[in-house]
Amino acid sequence: MTKIAVLGNGSWGSVLGSMLADNGNDVIFYGNIEAVNKEINEHHTNSHYMKDWHLNPTTSATGDLAKALQDAEIVLFVLPTSAVRIVAKQVKEVLDQSGNKPLLVTATKGIEPGSKKLISDILKEEIYPNDSDKIVAISGPSHAENVAQKDLTAIACASDNEENAKKVQKAFSNNYVRFYTNSDLVGVEVGGAIKNVIAIAAGILAGKGYGDDAKAALMTRGLAEISRLGVEYFGAQAKTFSGLSGIGDLIVTCTSVNSRNWRAGKQIGEGKSLDYVLKNMGQVVEGATTVKAVHELAEEKNIDMPINEAVYHVLYENADVDEEIARMMGRSPKAE
Amino acid sequence: MTKIAVLGNGSWGSVLGSMLADNGNDVIFYGNIEAVNKEINEHHTNSHYMKDWHLNPTTSATGDLAKALQDAEIVLFVLPTSAVRIVAKQVKEVLDQSGNKPLLVTATKGIEPGSKKLISDILKEEIYPNDSDKIVAISGPSHAENVAQKDLTAIACASDNEENAKKVQKAFSNNYVRFYTNSDLVGVEVGGAIKNVIAIAAGILAGKGYGDDAKAALMTRGLAEISRLGVEYFGAQAKTFSGLSGIGDLIVTCTSVNSRNWRAGKQIGEGKSLDYVLKNMGQVVEGATTVKAVHELAEEKNIDMPINEAVYHVLYENADVDEEIARMMGRSPKAE
Repeated sequence: MTKIAVLGNGSWGSVLGSMLADNGNDVIFYGNIEAVNKEINEHHTNSHYMKDWHLNPTTSATGDLAKALQDAEIVLFVLPTSAVRIVAKQVKEVLDQSGNKPLLVTATKGIEPGSKKLISDILKEEIYPNDSDKIVAISGPSHAENVAQKDLTAIACASDNEENAKKVQKAFSNNYVRFYTNSDLVGVEVGGAIKNVIAIAAGILAGKGYGDDAKAALMTRGLAEISRLGVEYFGAQAKTFSGLSGIGDLIVTCTSVNSRNWRAGKQIGEGKSLDYVLKNMGQVVEGATTVKAVHELAEEKNIDMPINEAVYHVLYENADVDEEIARMMGRSPKAE
Repeated sequence: MTKIAVLGNGSWGSVLGSMLADNGNDVIFYGNIEAVNKEINEHHTNSHYMKDWHLNPTTSATGDLAKALQDAEIVLFVLPTSAVRIVAKQVKEVLDQSGNKPLLVTATKGIEPGSKKLISDILKEEIYPNDSDKIVAISGPSHAENVAQKDLTAIACASDNEENAKKVQKAFSNNYVRFYTNSDLVGVEVGGAIKNVIAIAAGILAGKGYGDDAKAALMTRGLAEISRLGVEYFGAQAKTFSGLSGIGDLIVTCTSVNSRNWRAGKQIGEGKSLDYVLKNMGQVVEGATTVKAVHELAEEKNIDMPINEAVYHVLYENADVDEEIARMMGRSPKAE
């Protein structure tokens, strides 16, 4: 029985934590919304994020970080990107006092605004400057709703230290979720962090009435872009993008009508303005932020990102979708 | 204006040939069904294969191979796999008499039963044993129906000779179909030849009620299998499988409800027998043949192909789908 602290109790955190308890681990959630903690402790539900679903009844939740981290062997970060650095500083203080050195696992996908850092970089800087091999990232095609229904799911878990990736693989795997180890920590993080721009583009094409060929071409060339940025800017390995955290996650994000980013893109393709779409989604459309960060990264390093650029032009420079498509299709002939 | 002979006037041949004529090339079809040739010549339609659609009126069709090949600069093979060797022998005779040495382009996807050869291997053996650099393969996510409607489409064109791939790129590209050159001839052929087994597996999962996570995981791990076979058996380059002819084609085949193989798999997942499904499809389910060939190849070279094996067991050894899934999910922990 491994003691696991889950930081963040939104939909993915709740489902992962409950699954880890099903696997026989001792799981405690840390969250800063008292009402959610109370609901988890008293009813084993989290109705705002997961309707008609029950958590494993052995789990509990607390707003006291020191309590959550006490004797934890694994600390799982499932926070919004914007909260990771703040909470990481607090985690550092608690661990310094206790002397405990748990594995840090990140399930958060994103790039920090401003610094353009990945989550593992933040954890390294704030918590483990000299123990970065105790950081593991998990990423792959996994909707919380699907895992909650025990859909068959495969996820990559990556670390600089193979043994630590294997520890996570062992604690997290069961008969419906299968974890595959990977040595490319940064590569596994990049795919999930920037896939949403491609999902917006896929939605735009669907909104314009294009079909299956266009979607498949966009996803394939989108993967080529993500891979290029990952290799040239973040130092990732190209082959990682053929795996679960690369094409796997991209498939789920671009082909599920449940994807927020895809739905936002579809409305834009149908002629709605970005302002209108963002105001009426009721949820964050991460790709609309990511596209700006990627635009800056690509410019800084002079990396060819035609799909990202087209989405950026359409979202922020009022460009016409048909003209952007004509421009992309009319680029000089290329090798794959 | 390039003279192009299109061998085969099914749906994909008709659409490609008509598109090539739209691009300003001089196109003639060769086919062995007199009624189809007549219909193309008199009405510029091919109603059995493409309903409510007209070919470019400058195209013509003939049952006379020598006439079709006369002065051809490009000969495009869009025949069923089983017909390629027979027609290739006839092409060889005609070319020997004329002394003409056109580029040979294959759009046929498949592995020859028995020999397990790819189409380019057949063309090399039968026509160009000493000029194999004049062979180009085109493959990518492209339904005939979508290209006929001018859906945006991207396709790989591969040859041992870069200049010849570029010639095809130039003759075939337009403002809605974009060709990308690739130097891995064999790799570009393999993906399209064996993707249909994964499509059957995706259909089976859908028929059993599994969701988006399972589909994405299957496609990603399926791509890993295809890549492994391609590299170890056919000598392909791994990176080709991240491209249009690999993951791109797999996306179209596994996520479009129009895919025959996916539909066949779905019925099997719902409990129908293979015999029942094959009898009632009214069309060839290529994956049901390919799975046997891949099973033999994998065994011969001892290549790990768990998804292909599971489909083989379900289709031909009466294995239970749930047991196959449990077996796959319970395999020893793996790296990606």
